[in-house]
Amino acid sequence: MEGFKDHIKLFEDYIDNFTSDLNNNAIYDPIKYFLKLPSKRIRPLLTLISSSLYSDDIKNALPASLANEVFHNFTLVHDDIMDSSKIRRGNDTVHIKWNINQAILSGDAMQILAYKCLENYDSKIQKKLIQIFNDTALKICEGQQLDIEFEKEKDIQFSDYIQMIKYKTAVLLGSSLKMGGIINNISDSDLGLLYDIGLNLGLAFQIQDDYLDLFGDEKLIGKKIGGDLINRKKTVMYHVYKELSSSEDSQFLDQIYNNSEIEDDIKIEKITTLFKESQVDIKTKNLSQEYSNKAISLIEKLNIKNDKKTDLLVICKKLLSRDY
Amino acid sequence: MEGFKDHIKLFEDYIDNFTSDLNNNAIYDPIKYFLKLPSKRIRPLLTLISSSLYSDDIKNALPASLANEVFHNFTLVHDDIMDSSKIRRGNDTVHIKWNINQAILSGDAMQILAYKCLENYDSKIQKKLIQIFNDTALKICEGQQLDIEFEKEKDIQFSDYIQMIKYKTAVLLGSSLKMGGIINNISDSDLGLLYDIGLNLGLAFQIQDDYLDLFGDEKLIGKKIGGDLINRKKTVMYHVYKELSSSEDSQFLDQIYNNSEIEDDIKIEKITTLFKESQVDIKTKNLSQEYSNKAISLIEKLNIKNDKKTDLLVICKKLLSRDY
Repeated sequence: MEGFKDHIKLFEDYIDNFTSDLNNNAIYDPIKYFLKLPSKRIRPLLTLISSSLYSDDIKNALPASLANEVFHNFTLVHDDIMDSSKIRRGNDTVHIKWNINQAILSGDAMQILAYKCLENYDSKIQKKLIQIFNDTALKICEGQQLDIEFEKEKDIQFSDYIQMIKYKTAVLLGSSLKMGGIINNISDSDLGLLYDIGLNLGLAFQIQDDYLDLFGDEKLIGKKIGGDLINRKKTVMYHVYKELSSSEDSQFLDQIYNNSEIEDDIKIEKITTLFKESQVDIKTKNLSQEYSNKAISLIEKLNIKNDKKTDLLVICKKLLSRDY
Repeated sequence: MEGFKDHIKLFEDYIDNFTSDLNNNAIYDPIKYFLKLPSKRIRPLLTLISSSLYSDDIKNALPASLANEVFHNFTLVHDDIMDSSKIRRGNDTVHIKWNINQAILSGDAMQILAYKCLENYDSKIQKKLIQIFNDTALKICEGQQLDIEFEKEKDIQFSDYIQMIKYKTAVLLGSSLKMGGIINNISDSDLGLLYDIGLNLGLAFQIQDDYLDLFGDEKLIGKKIGGDLINRKKTVMYHVYKELSSSEDSQFLDQIYNNSEIEDDIKIEKITTLFKESQVDIKTKNLSQEYSNKAISLIEKLNIKNDKKTDLLVICKKLLSRDY
């Protein structure tokens, strides 16, 4: 895993150059601020790693990595407005540090900048990159739409919920891996595998994210346990519980969830007990594991040397173990 | 000018197909609504006309025309939020008919859809289209940023104000014409001319727009005289007056502009008199004419037959006379 930190370093230097090349129009101030907040750079890292499976020219993957990171950050800036989130990565969100109009406008510019990154590739590669990029970007927006709707609706099918997190989160991990392949002109078969690996990795990651918010180690995840519950976020565990509960039990969960008179700690304790009693914790962990296993089995099928497969495997496992 | 209505009809059919092909996700509802509001379709018309100067295959220009129209409409949806505008084209704005979050999110999807339209071209053409599209889109965002800042600041240089309207409005007319040329693989010289024709046309149009808001014929412009003043919009005439006034006169204008105790009609009358006394009306009209003349002189230089030049000239004049 030696190359891992090197990849991040290379990317950070690249994003530094990118932000300092932006002109002095104040629209770019929030962009410079937001892109420099502490981030694990998961998406650009996936693009860099995926490209390195097929080529030693790692620098060729930098513009595509940046496109994915800038696009992801654009969605965060706008999502933070929609969710009224005040803190992102331990710092003020853009609409708090500036204002809503500024967050809308600078977000819009970020979206364009993401496309601009792809100008670095020759026309045939660029065409392929833009196609997957457009499709992914639209799915992410559709996923955000579903997320907003699902938070308001009472009865959501579990499969619809999974579809929502697939669109909102997983497709960008799929396309981040696929784009690393596209720039190296690899076979359609490997391109499809890379996309599906990212998709399954993304689902495993998102489900685990919800799981750890309630059942994780506070020190490891770096935030207070139960934050999702306090924010009444309908997590995957909420949906797993509803999927396997009677309508009375389901109503009971909603009553606790939406009761603003119960103290936070008590609410967390009550729901943790409820989830443990019906093995929601185990079932959720298993679901994440299933997607993770699927991703791993797909890595095996890639038409690359075994040591390269190991590289990708290690990265995926590190992402899921949050050990980096 | 027979082809003029045919162009619009062709475009309206194309945009109808486009909106009905969008899937059932609710994110597309405001997009379908907004794209069907009454519109003069200036930008797509410019792309279609510009393409028809070099080719009889008018349909080839439809996707690029649509990209320009969808992008323009995206900026309107987001600008309407930023400006708290309630009415657009005689109908509710998206954030009023739905809500701000929906207007942000559906606007984001429109931006991606604009890029998606350009997928219809082969890779080399697409690359050129995307480059001008990215540059134009960023300039439009930068222009909106300057517009917001200038509304708050007291002392704006006239040249900076012109730069702002160039970015916010004129560049998209430039790129609409240029894109019609790009899809026909025309010479760089004609591409540059088309862009500059659109830029000058856009400046002439925007300056005239401000002029007509105060000095136009209510019946012809279809809205009440002086709306910009009532909304305290710092129009080109405001800046022309400031440019040629002493600092006392300049302060006097601001006092009337920002006085909320003066009735609307009195305010309009006072400022109209002020502008007429210092010939702001004539100077503004002349400025618009200068840009319009520049556009016309550039049309002459295009490497196309004279009857084609006449086509473009007639369209430009029709746009400026609002006679269609």
